[in-house]
Amino acid sequence: MKLEPSTLPPHSRRKAAAAALGLALACAGGAAQAQSRVQLFGVIDSGITHLSSSGSGSVNQLGADGNTSSRLGFRGTEDLGGGLKASFWLEAAYEADTGAGGSTSVDNIKNQSGGLTFGRRSTVSLSGDFGEVRLGRDFVPGFSNLAVSGGGYHAFGTNGVGSSAALFYPPAGARGVTHVRASNSIAYHLPKLGGFFGTVMYGFSESMANNDGRVVGARVGYASGPLSLAVATTKTTHSVLGDLKQSNIGASYDFGVIKPMLLLGENKAGDDKKTRVWALGAHVPVGSAGQFRVSYGAVKATNVANDANHIALGYVHNLSKRTALYGNVARVKNKDGGKAYTVGDGLAVSDANGSGTGYQVGIRHSF
Amino acid sequence: MKLEPSTLPPHSRRKAAAAALGLALACAGGAAQAQSRVQLFGVIDSGITHLSSSGSGSVNQLGADGNTSSRLGFRGTEDLGGGLKASFWLEAAYEADTGAGGSTSVDNIKNQSGGLTFGRRSTVSLSGDFGEVRLGRDFVPGFSNLAVSGGGYHAFGTNGVGSSAALFYPPAGARGVTHVRASNSIAYHLPKLGGFFGTVMYGFSESMANNDGRVVGARVGYASGPLSLAVATTKTTHSVLGDLKQSNIGASYDFGVIKPMLLLGENKAGDDKKTRVWALGAHVPVGSAGQFRVSYGAVKATNVANDANHIALGYVHNLSKRTALYGNVARVKNKDGGKAYTVGDGLAVSDANGSGTGYQVGIRHSF
Amino acid sequence: MKLEPSTLPPHSRRKAAAAALGLALACAGGAAQAQSRVQLFGVIDSGITHLSSSGSGSVNQLGADGNTSSRLGFRGTEDLGGGLKASFWLEAAYEADTGAGGSTSVDNIKNQSGGLTFGRRSTVSLSGDFGEVRLGRDFVPGFSNLAVSGGGYHAFGTNGVGSSAALFYPPAGARGVTHVRASNSIAYHLPKLGGFFGTVMYGFSESMANNDGRVVGARVGYASGPLSLAVATTKTTHSVLGDLKQSNIGASYDFGVIKPMLLLGENKAGDDKKTRVWALGAHVPVGSAGQFRVSYGAVKATNVANDANHIALGYVHNLSKRTALYGNVARVKNKDGGKAYTVGDGLAVSDANGSGTGYQVGIRHSF
Repeated sequence: MKLEPSTLPPHSRRKAAAAALGLALACAGGAAQAQSRVQLFGVIDSGITHLSSSGSGSVNQLGADGNTSSRLGFRGTEDLGGGLKASFWLEAAYEADTGAGGSTSVDNIKNQSGGLTFGRRSTVSLSGDFGEVRLGRDFVPGFSNLAVSGGGYHAFGTNGVGSSAALFYPPAGARGVTHVRASNSIAYHLPKLGGFFGTVMYGFSESMANNDGRVVGARVGYASGPLSLAVATTKTTHSVLGDLKQSNIGASYDFGVIKPMLLLGENKAGDDKKTRVWALGAHVPVGSAGQFRVSYGAVKATNVANDANHIALGYVHNLSKRTALYGNVARVKNKDGGKAYTVGDGLAVSDANGSGTGYQVGIRHSF
Repeated sequence: MKLEPSTLPPHSRRKAAAAALGLALACAGGAAQAQSRVQLFGVIDSGITHLSSSGSGSVNQLGADGNTSSRLGFRGTEDLGGGLKASFWLEAAYEADTGAGGSTSVDNIKNQSGGLTFGRRSTVSLSGDFGEVRLGRDFVPGFSNLAVSGGGYHAFGTNGVGSSAALFYPPAGARGVTHVRASNSIAYHLPKLGGFFGTVMYGFSESMANNDGRVVGARVGYASGPLSLAVATTKTTHSVLGDLKQSNIGASYDFGVIKPMLLLGENKAGDDKKTRVWALGAHVPVGSAGQFRVSYGAVKATNVANDANHIALGYVHNLSKRTALYGNVARVKNKDGGKAYTVGDGLAVSDANGSGTGYQVGIRHSF
Repeated sequence: MKLEPSTLPPHSRRKAAAAALGLALACAGGAAQAQSRVQLFGVIDSGITHLSSSGSGSVNQLGADGNTSSRLGFRGTEDLGGGLKASFWLEAAYEADTGAGGSTSVDNIKNQSGGLTFGRRSTVSLSGDFGEVRLGRDFVPGFSNLAVSGGGYHAFGTNGVGSSAALFYPPAGARGVTHVRASNSIAYHLPKLGGFFGTVMYGFSESMANNDGRVVGARVGYASGPLSLAVATTKTTHSVLGDLKQSNIGASYDFGVIKPMLLLGENKAGDDKKTRVWALGAHVPVGSAGQFRVSYGAVKATNVANDANHIALGYVHNLSKRTALYGNVARVKNKDGGKAYTVGDGLAVSDANGSGTGYQVGIRHSF
């Protein structure tokens, strides 16, 4: 029920705001009494996916989230006067192909029952001139640069066969440690200071036995006109799998005819395991409604997994501001005798130095 | 939040549409800017049920869904121009008597955690003059003729003690195979061609090991004026329980003073198990607000379960277009020394040739 | 999307109702056509909590529900004419700090998958001059006096470290028996009769084997001007843990400068286990936006748990009618060599005669 979806460009938002005053309208008497309590918003993304991996065969699927992660959310902001605002944001993931709900993390254990949870985001905020204090479950700072909704620098964000997740996520054995979103967190977001932005987050462990699940992270960046860049790091404590330190830096520059972007990342797990990753990508507008996407990246692994590279091509055709058709193709190639990597959430690779390949066409609709 | 609930007759919908322009209104400036993003809709149905079965005793319950299945949903349609539309539909089942959520199917396994899922329907569509392409989770074609919301031909649909489920559902041992809704499906729905309608569906197995859960089905029909008829079939692959083939044909004719309806069905499970079912029913208007319902049917079983028959009587008293009180009574009688069948989701019958009986009174409210 | 949140005082509700005509507005043509189908409403409450217990150490948490229980709900009322109304109410609990959903009870077993359920309330009602008949899941009568949303008489309701739950809930061993909300229930609520109010509830066991989970309860009271008082009792049958009988009486009187309140309760579990509890508390307005809270209570236990007392202090600062900051501090002290009690959902006490202490500061936002 969002009349101003987050995917609208600013000028459209203003227009929409002028013409339409939100969901929970007070109409009797006109716009002056208008007030909005809750925005209902979401995305549904589904498509046909073909995955194949060396030694594992292939599979056809009705996939989901090839372009944007499916979600349903409720959010709102109350003006408290004097520049102070209270806001809430409850956002659930769901699988568009099955209707199952997405997981969250409770007591540092992933809760994946298939029922809907507000696992994508569950926050209450106070904001004003001083910035914003946000409590609850949200992206860890070290993840934002990987994701589109985090304001990231990978051409495919974290979606589909071209997803940054293929190489940038923590290596096998460390993925169980919080690295996307943290429950029980307190974050402080800087106010707008010219183009500068910044976030620090602390997430409570809540464990009596150890500090497992404790999150400490920060992200700072600058975005103005065509330029955007940010650096982030997050450390999650884990007594068994080893502490995870996820750091990255990204930048993009919109030349109009092409928007190249670069993302560099490092994951340290425990004392000696490490992956270093880079990806160079670009968005290229095609006519008024199309966008071509390309990304190439590689991972260099130490004492874990193996080296690999990842190439992805995609095309997005916007039917409207809210609806798009898309197609992606991507390939991950393992090296050094390994087989740790594959595309998206795809089939595991069974052969040493094997590759994983994925094709997908789909539709994404925002509401 | 649906101002035009699906239960309204067409003329009321038009009226409602003229008077009220949907939930997500753009009020400043008037109706011209009105646009609707999301409709929030649902049903709550609850009542008192008494069930008894030969040899098993009896039980009183606060039952649910005696008239219509309880649900909460979010849906919307975007006009893309040129006759093209994008739509989404997310619909969750819940138990009105406990608040628990309904299940869905993920990886061909029923996911029944008690948390809410969009297990009733989770689809994104593109539609236009060419018809509609719909991706996600939805009714299989072979189920629609059994259900009211599928446009079916059983006087009690799939609800309450008179439900078509009693005899028409696949026999014991084959119920675990997809026969109501399929996840991971692609469906094509014909555009309106006079009174003709039609659907084909393909549901991906997504399994590497076999084709379990693969669904192929079709339904075609004709509805014009008082006459409606449809034929449907769906095959679901299952390597252990045997492939399930569910076929049926139904017809109804509204004479005004009575609307008789006939439904014939067949379920083939594996190579040799088979049930053949028929039901003759009718809806009879009583005054301006009442409706009397009657159904009689029988099943003939081969190499599975047993023969049985099922009689049901019901009355629906509409307090408004959205709210109704109802009462149902029904009895299933097993034959041939069997005890496989009972009423609704009721008590299993323990005695050979035993019967199951159910009474219920309740309230159904749509929103 | 509730334009008239339940937390607004009556005069504000009227004002809000006059200015704003609900969510699902019919704007074209003006207020006359206005009709509301669904109100979307909720609360988010999160804060920082420090808990410590004798012999168990301490822990810091991002806690939730320190002031009010987090929830998301959908509700609506349809005017059927002639004074008759149909209503529904679906309300889900969720953890603001993790986004996980709250539990419900199905077949007398707690269903706690972490997925959202309408476990807080799932009811359909018919109401009129005769009162209200309500079917589904709701508070048992014997619980209402403990909770703010039940119209209770404890200064901290059932939230935070000062919660009435600390002493008033059934003792260890009997907490598994229904004592907060009952699924499968039928309740009758008296119409407004001067200041008198009353409820009776019957909840079906639905078990074939025994009557476990059967609930019978009643509550009557009087509220007029500054005075409010109510007495309630509820019996839940349980063949293993013993029948639970939860009774209480409460009263409050608003002097303007202070609103003292007294709550007396008794829990009988099985034949010989019993706890008797009392709490004396007060709300004291501080300026136009503040409220000071204090509560002191004690439990006397027989054949179960142990004696204990509980003191709590709190302050609520309203930033608006919808948003408040709050701080609470509380301490439970066990006696008679026991360690059964602690604050809120806090750490178990490990030492005989030990104490549990909690501090919390947080924010509560209603929508």
